[in-house]
Amino acid sequence: MEPKFYSKENLRFLMHEVFNVAELCKRDAFKEHTPEEFDMILEAADSLSTTHLRPILLEMDRNPPHIVNGRVKVHPKMREIMKRFGEDGWISMSAPYEHGGQQVPFTILQMAGFIMAAANYSPMAYAFLTNGAAHLIETFGSKELFDTYVTKMFNGEWQGTMALSEPQAGSSLSDVVTSATPTDKGYYLIKGQKVFISCGDHDGVDNIVHLMLARIDGAPAGTNGISLFVVPRERYNDKGELEFNDVNTAGVFHKMGYHGAPIAHLMMGEAGDCRGYLLGEEHKGLSYMFQMMNEARIGVGANATSIASAAYYNSLEYANVRAQGRKLTEKDPNKPQTPIINHADVKRMLLFQKAIVEGSLSLVAQACIYYDNWKTSEGAEKEANFLKLELLTPIVKSYPAEMSILSTSAALQIFGGYGYTKEFMAELFFRETRIHTIHEGATAIHGMDLLGRKVMMKDGQATMLLMQEVMGDIEKAKQHESLKPYAEALEKKLGSLQEITVHLLGVAQSKGPEAYLSDATLYLELFGILAIGWQWLKQGITAEELKAAGSKQYSNEFIASKHHALQYFFEYELPKTEGLATRLKSKNKVTLNATAEEIV
Amino acid sequence: MEPKFYSKENLRFLMHEVFNVAELCKRDAFKEHTPEEFDMILEAADSLSTTHLRPILLEMDRNPPHIVNGRVKVHPKMREIMKRFGEDGWISMSAPYEHGGQQVPFTILQMAGFIMAAANYSPMAYAFLTNGAAHLIETFGSKELFDTYVTKMFNGEWQGTMALSEPQAGSSLSDVVTSATPTDKGYYLIKGQKVFISCGDHDGVDNIVHLMLARIDGAPAGTNGISLFVVPRERYNDKGELEFNDVNTAGVFHKMGYHGAPIAHLMMGEAGDCRGYLLGEEHKGLSYMFQMMNEARIGVGANATSIASAAYYNSLEYANVRAQGRKLTEKDPNKPQTPIINHADVKRMLLFQKAIVEGSLSLVAQACIYYDNWKTSEGAEKEANFLKLELLTPIVKSYPAEMSILSTSAALQIFGGYGYTKEFMAELFFRETRIHTIHEGATAIHGMDLLGRKVMMKDGQATMLLMQEVMGDIEKAKQHESLKPYAEALEKKLGSLQEITVHLLGVAQSKGPEAYLSDATLYLELFGILAIGWQWLKQGITAEELKAAGSKQYSNEFIASKHHALQYFFEYELPKTEGLATRLKSKNKVTLNATAEEIV
Repeated sequence: MEPKFYSKENLRFLMHEVFNVAELCKRDAFKEHTPEEFDMILEAADSLSTTHLRPILLEMDRNPPHIVNGRVKVHPKMREIMKRFGEDGWISMSAPYEHGGQQVPFTILQMAGFIMAAANYSPMAYAFLTNGAAHLIETFGSKELFDTYVTKMFNGEWQGTMALSEPQAGSSLSDVVTSATPTDKGYYLIKGQKVFISCGDHDGVDNIVHLMLARIDGAPAGTNGISLFVVPRERYNDKGELEFNDVNTAGVFHKMGYHGAPIAHLMMGEAGDCRGYLLGEEHKGLSYMFQMMNEARIGVGANATSIASAAYYNSLEYANVRAQGRKLTEKDPNKPQTPIINHADVKRMLLFQKAIVEGSLSLVAQACIYYDNWKTSEGAEKEANFLKLELLTPIVKSYPAEMSILSTSAALQIFGGYGYTKEFMAELFFRETRIHTIHEGATAIHGMDLLGRKVMMKDGQATMLLMQEVMGDIEKAKQHESLKPYAEALEKKLGSLQEITVHLLGVAQSKGPEAYLSDATLYLELFGILAIGWQWLKQGITAEELKAAGSKQYSNEFIASKHHALQYFFEYELPKTEGLATRLKSKNKVTLNATAEEIV
Repeated sequence: MEPKFYSKENLRFLMHEVFNVAELCKRDAFKEHTPEEFDMILEAADSLSTTHLRPILLEMDRNPPHIVNGRVKVHPKMREIMKRFGEDGWISMSAPYEHGGQQVPFTILQMAGFIMAAANYSPMAYAFLTNGAAHLIETFGSKELFDTYVTKMFNGEWQGTMALSEPQAGSSLSDVVTSATPTDKGYYLIKGQKVFISCGDHDGVDNIVHLMLARIDGAPAGTNGISLFVVPRERYNDKGELEFNDVNTAGVFHKMGYHGAPIAHLMMGEAGDCRGYLLGEEHKGLSYMFQMMNEARIGVGANATSIASAAYYNSLEYANVRAQGRKLTEKDPNKPQTPIINHADVKRMLLFQKAIVEGSLSLVAQACIYYDNWKTSEGAEKEANFLKLELLTPIVKSYPAEMSILSTSAALQIFGGYGYTKEFMAELFFRETRIHTIHEGATAIHGMDLLGRKVMMKDGQATMLLMQEVMGDIEKAKQHESLKPYAEALEKKLGSLQEITVHLLGVAQSKGPEAYLSDATLYLELFGILAIGWQWLKQGITAEELKAAGSKQYSNEFIASKHHALQYFFEYELPKTEGLATRLKSKNKVTLNATAEEIV
């Protein structure tokens, strides 16, 4: 039997029932598509995952990337896989027709990515980075840049990257110092180093195309002086041949997990001949980069959910076959042992995972729908979808990332002693997912983004729009007897969130920004729980409607499992907001009062 | 500079101020000792840790145990280290004088172990398993068994183990099937297999002595038919030479971390010639084993705290030197970056770790003091200390184990991208500590132990005695202005705990044991938070008293840091009980209502 790493039934439920992707096809941009075609895309992702990606997950873990003669070697199958990603259209799928893409909704591409990352996270990163980098060139680049790079990237022949971090500038991008010196030949000379560049060098492609932040000589300090460059590892010379562009690989990071993808340390311009090609205008690089970053942040939420999904089904399968102990009411030791899924605490750990995985995936889908609606509408609708997406982005990135640590940990725990060993994959998923609270902005950064920027952006319009939508769903949920108590619970918690926000704005006024943002991470956590509660209500409404309509499209067990997971979320997860609320309303700013010297 | 892996100042504070170990020296059993001698023991542990243990931590991680010709090979230094453990008296230290020990309090031995495990957890496991196994033979064995085994074990020449788990009997010990067939030669023939046997085979010693659970032919099913045997890997023949005792190593488990210690899969009696020597009486094996298990459970709590301590100081050091970003109020990007310890969220993650590490260590010390008092007193005092220890044991084991996962995760997060790489040790500590919620009873087992047995043992006497003691400390804390609000908060929470317990006892009566225990893990978590709150109050009282007395023994920074960590605990951790209380009082037994088929 193939190992199950995600639920097709659940993905169908989310796509066709909860988010009704048929609606997307009514939009001009997507009018050539049909829901059946979307299913075929997801089926293709499933097939590639099962035949190519999952089979090499363990091999990739056991054989991490390494350097040979100054170049990074990755799993030998990666070349074939990148070619498949290219030929099957995974890299170009969401690009517009005129750029050679298929104009497939971002939602569908992300869900396909969800499947592939659940099978094997690392290879998927190669494709999505290339997609994001190509999209940047498409959006902001000249025709020449497009013609030079994008086709090769779409084909999976060349790898794309996002090259932001430097040794002294990780979370603090305003401190980027990689320099770009203008020449009279249309390019800049790049000098500096970049660290943690995912897929920054490898032998699975013929070239690497870095989308790189650098500072043009004389540019202002801070984020307003950063420009975006296309910096290939190899560039074309006058004869149209590829030649080395002075981008050296200084090293590859040895990591705890995520071993299939190489994370490189790069040195540019050691020989004074690294050429960079300006993308768009000078000094606007960071704002351009945010296009890719925001897409990548949704992607991180999806990937964290993928790994939690893989771990969930892994542990669910084990819990159904591993016999250990007896029911508490069974005192006869001669009776056979029972599968551990029958123990309440194992069920708790399974429902916890299910509530996290399916709640998170629903929130990711929600963000994707906003994205597609934003990109394909005008005027007030465009603005509303943009604002809701902006507000949700830090949550979509962070909630799944943080909870995936706990969710994969619960999966590991279900395996008992075996979970700590390499005989099963539980320990791999636990190691693999730990990256997600770090890359694309550490959790604290997103807390500050949410509370410091998003909540009050455009005079709080983003918040207001989202709350209106949530309240609409709460009202719908109240129509169903089984959902009513949970709808009311969420409504109450939203009131409490508003109180907390008002309280904190008072703190901002009286005590300044440091006090205001000192517990932004907790605010993010609380907001995240409510957002997932909302998604569970939406799923609950859909499940009730399907039941009422007598639909046979979903198994009774599936519908019942939705009901249980929803209840789990509201019974076990929602109450966690109580302690967070207490803390957020406290006057005692412990973390500000303690000086660095007084933490010993 | 040597890396710091624990705080000497804090250990001194706990031992001499909070728990006043001078009191132990007034007891008959310990009257030969002085507090200064205890300090020398801890100093010796520090020295061994710095010179021998920490230097090989990374090597051990990179070179896990492996099998060569059917035997497990471990780090080549382990033979020397085991010899040191023996010669320096670490294995025998707590044994009575008449058995060749030094009758050192369990408290001191555990604190020495805390230091060593913070330096390098794995080697410490070899010593403590040998100590525990020897203690079992000392306590329940014949003189012959004592003479044959204990001296060699005390010397570090032979390894001791606890051999409980079998492939089909992990958490469910009643299903142990390893058989023991009586012979007329004074020994039993053992047949069966054991899994997850820590230090179950290795080349750092000359012999392995398993303290093994097995079932004598014809014994009753269940836990009442289990006996305890001494089963050496090699036994003495008539000529006094060692010969193979038919204990084969079937394999060594490859684990996520904790690579310095081999975890073996053993096969006994494949050639029909594995001899086991009964310890104590037939069928009483499990109750004997609980002596070692209960000591080991305190040890697990201590070890989990050790690893969290190592990760805390690792991340604290980094936070003080790594510059990144600026204060939120500093808008000038030309100003130098600030060490990340100055960011509120980094301080939060540091204070979190400190609150967990020092709160847990204090609780471990508390349990050890009960242990020593129990072992060295009579009558009501003995009973009271025994009961309080029994009640605290599941908490001392589980709270540090569970929180160490989160604490080491926070340490890793402070390192940002570097935390996920092997350039620093954050990822190692995160992998290393994950075993602790599993071995010596998975967390769920301790939840059921606490709520199902301990809370109501002897008509609730254990609970009553502990609560009396806590209330006494709360009253003391109320005398200090700075502690009063926290003392009152804890008092309120204890009232809430009592309500919850009463509520659950009602559930037990109306709905039976499954409903009663379905959220025992959450009850354990809640109880744990209150227990740590109590320990922080105790530390707070001591800090206040030292300040009032104008003591110069502790730095101002240390005293201030205690104050901050205490506040952190009460501001951020105690509120988590609110959500737990809500859940524990809910009528909706989600995990019982969901059938196995309805979790998909």
